[in-house]
Amino acid sequence: MIQTDILIIGAGPTGLFTVFEAGLLKLRCHLIDALPQPGGQCSEIYPKKPIYDIPAYPEILAGDLTHKLMEQIKQFEPGFTLGERADTIEKQEDGSFIVTTNKGTKHQAPVVAIAGGLGSFEPRKPLLSNLADFEDNGVEYIIRDPEIYRDKKVVIAGGGDSALDWSIFLTDVASEVTLVHRRNEFRGALDSVEKVQELKNLGKINLITPAEVKGLIGKEKLTGVAIEKKGEDGFILDTDHFIPLFGLSPKLGPIGNWGLEIEKNAIKVNNSLDYQTNIPGIYAIGDVNTYPGKLKLILCGFHEATLMCQSAYKRIHPDKKYVMKYTTVGGVEGFDGTKKEAPKAVVKAIN
Amino acid sequence: MIQTDILIIGAGPTGLFTVFEAGLLKLRCHLIDALPQPGGQCSEIYPKKPIYDIPAYPEILAGDLTHKLMEQIKQFEPGFTLGERADTIEKQEDGSFIVTTNKGTKHQAPVVAIAGGLGSFEPRKPLLSNLADFEDNGVEYIIRDPEIYRDKKVVIAGGGDSALDWSIFLTDVASEVTLVHRRNEFRGALDSVEKVQELKNLGKINLITPAEVKGLIGKEKLTGVAIEKKGEDGFILDTDHFIPLFGLSPKLGPIGNWGLEIEKNAIKVNNSLDYQTNIPGIYAIGDVNTYPGKLKLILCGFHEATLMCQSAYKRIHPDKKYVMKYTTVGGVEGFDGTKKEAPKAVVKAIN
Ligand SMILES: Cc1cc2nc3c(=O)[nH]c(=O)nc-3n(C[C@H](O)[C@H](O)[C@H](O)COP(=O)(O)OP(=O)(O)OC[C@H]3O[C@@H](n4cnc5c(N)ncnc54)[C@H](O)[C@@H]3O)c2cc1C
Ligand SMILES: Cc1cc2nc3c(=O)[nH]c(=O)nc-3n(C[C@H](O)[C@H](O)[C@H](O)COP(=O)(O)OP(=O)(O)OC[C@H]3O[C@@H](n4cnc5c(N)ncnc54)[C@H](O)[C@@H]3O)c2cc1C
Repeated sequence: MIQTDILIIGAGPTGLFTVFEAGLLKLRCHLIDALPQPGGQCSEIYPKKPIYDIPAYPEILAGDLTHKLMEQIKQFEPGFTLGERADTIEKQEDGSFIVTTNKGTKHQAPVVAIAGGLGSFEPRKPLLSNLADFEDNGVEYIIRDPEIYRDKKVVIAGGGDSALDWSIFLTDVASEVTLVHRRNEFRGALDSVEKVQELKNLGKINLITPAEVKGLIGKEKLTGVAIEKKGEDGFILDTDHFIPLFGLSPKLGPIGNWGLEIEKNAIKVNNSLDYQTNIPGIYAIGDVNTYPGKLKLILCGFHEATLMCQSAYKRIHPDKKYVMKYTTVGGVEGFDGTKKEAPKAVVKAIN
Repeated sequence: MIQTDILIIGAGPTGLFTVFEAGLLKLRCHLIDALPQPGGQCSEIYPKKPIYDIPAYPEILAGDLTHKLMEQIKQFEPGFTLGERADTIEKQEDGSFIVTTNKGTKHQAPVVAIAGGLGSFEPRKPLLSNLADFEDNGVEYIIRDPEIYRDKKVVIAGGGDSALDWSIFLTDVASEVTLVHRRNEFRGALDSVEKVQELKNLGKINLITPAEVKGLIGKEKLTGVAIEKKGEDGFILDTDHFIPLFGLSPKLGPIGNWGLEIEKNAIKVNNSLDYQTNIPGIYAIGDVNTYPGKLKLILCGFHEATLMCQSAYKRIHPDKKYVMKYTTVGGVEGFDGTKKEAPKAVVKAIN
């Protein structure tokens, strides 16, 4: 059982910044995310696009925002359960909560902060009858660790940035990369489209368009896919992996059944105080919550996280009084033993 | 009369970021500040100190934060009335407000956003009987334009960073720089203290310690100061300017008499919606406001400014419906004709 002070569901920008604010209050955090990497929408949907309304950043790429946040929270040593979806929550007698993922990982904490954004990112799956038989036996929707494809044959399907970028990346890892798309046209960054064209010309990417994967072949483990190219006979291609990259779409999912008040697919919170839900000890911050005047903006999630941590502190330490100190004045003391602080002024005679 | 959409009182981080959020809504802003430069507490009290809790900045100097914000709002062409204090407000029949400064400058707008922080920064003045006679006639508390000291004799008093840094700076401008402090010890950045020692050794700063300026001499314009050095006879030093730099301290001041609900020296606002005060059309955001759970943090001011602008938009355009677009998706169109936008994805065949 993983134990922590604040269990954060969702490692998007809101969840990540929560670790920082909690850390200032000497509270430890652990994050669960269905995605294999932190950053939420920023890293999954638009990592290479600029955001213009992060305060004091005239421009920052969404991917860089994620990196900066990870750097900012490093000294507070957050724990991560990645690639798993938080499915159930149970309140314990001592007032704490146990949250269990779809893979059975259990987490316990006195405070749960739902920073789930638009929901848990779930892959769009192709319609293939025996798909479920091969999931994690040769079929993957998300690339967690590219090393598992080392010297393997890989078939990627899709026509967007993920399909393009992973095809490019895996040419250096896999023994064979095939890219299947139902159109000749791809939609993505110009760079990526041109790079795939080049790798195809060099024979490093085996491009099959317009075509679709129509069947999966193998016993227990995948050994091949059946491909139909428009206007031609179907054929079978030997492969170790089939990776359909048709995008991930967020679903509020199981959190919708936790007994929380839901409105417009979002969780209602007390915005006049601390972004707490109708269940004391469970907060909802960032895109996942709703209240009068709510804006689904990153900078709003940062504020909500900050106020929420103050309330969480009172719940966890009902008897302690916390006196806020500016970071500039008090510095930042990490759980890893580091301390950042402003250079002190000197008092020195001039003669 | 200066006319604008949102008149912002206070050019600290909150006021500055308001210009950005208003600009996204195509609303123009004008800012009034008692200080000669934007940045509020960040530029006046701790420009060279690091802040650690600006989201996605593991560390940023307060002065750099101000510069980044100025860069971010540039394309929305904010107007500034600097070095003047907003003193009175009058509501007009058409619902708009006229705000007049201590120097008589008048500003009119349908919406007023008070982002006044801890109050208007007012200089701590030395106790000298005829001080008022020489104000702006040789005595200045704030250095607005260093060029007025070109080839002039200057006496600076004070023992902190401002006194040290301006003494250093003015050695290249003034014909003679004298620094008077009532102790031998100065308190400031090590660099600055050492630099003053060096300039003193080179004869470029005339250092008189422990000593105090006890009198001002001149008719209409200042021509000299009377200095008493501890344990010695007093003497008169000819000078064109006397600049006592004893720090600025914020005072809520005249805003306290505008009919706004005040609690703990701050303005009460409706935090469950739009940070509006008890007077419709007047908002209070950032350090200057108070509500249950309020934190006087920069990142909170950013959120408050953002929600406030949405409400201001509805007040200014009661009949229009605003549809929010992410900056990443819609780009940022400046009033200066510039447009920032994300590079578009291409749709392109690969053959
Ligand atoms: C194309 C695009 C452009 C945008 N541009 C801007 C912009 O310019 N400015 C701006 O401020 N905002 C912008 N946004 C919105 C911004 O990305 C979101 O406001 C922000 O990502 C919200 O952060 P969050 O941490 O609240 O949620 P998210 O980023 O959505 O992260 C939530 C995370 O929670 C996880 N999760 C949810 N439920 C579960 C569960 N049960 N178990 C495990 N994990 C779970 C999800 O997998 C996800 O990773 C844009 C969004 C998009 C899509
Ligand atoms: C030493 C120190 C360290 C700090 N460290 C941190 C930190 O680490 N993190 C953090 O988040 N915050 C920190 N703060 C607090 C932070 O600086 C404030 O929260 C922030 O400056 C508030 O911004 P603001 O724009 O609301 O107000 P301010 O920065 O106070 O600006 C308000 C401006 O309004 C002007 N004004 C007021 N009334 C009038 C009037 N009637 N007419 C004309 N002008 C007027 C004032 O002159 C001032 O320039 C620190 C503060 C100090 C002093």
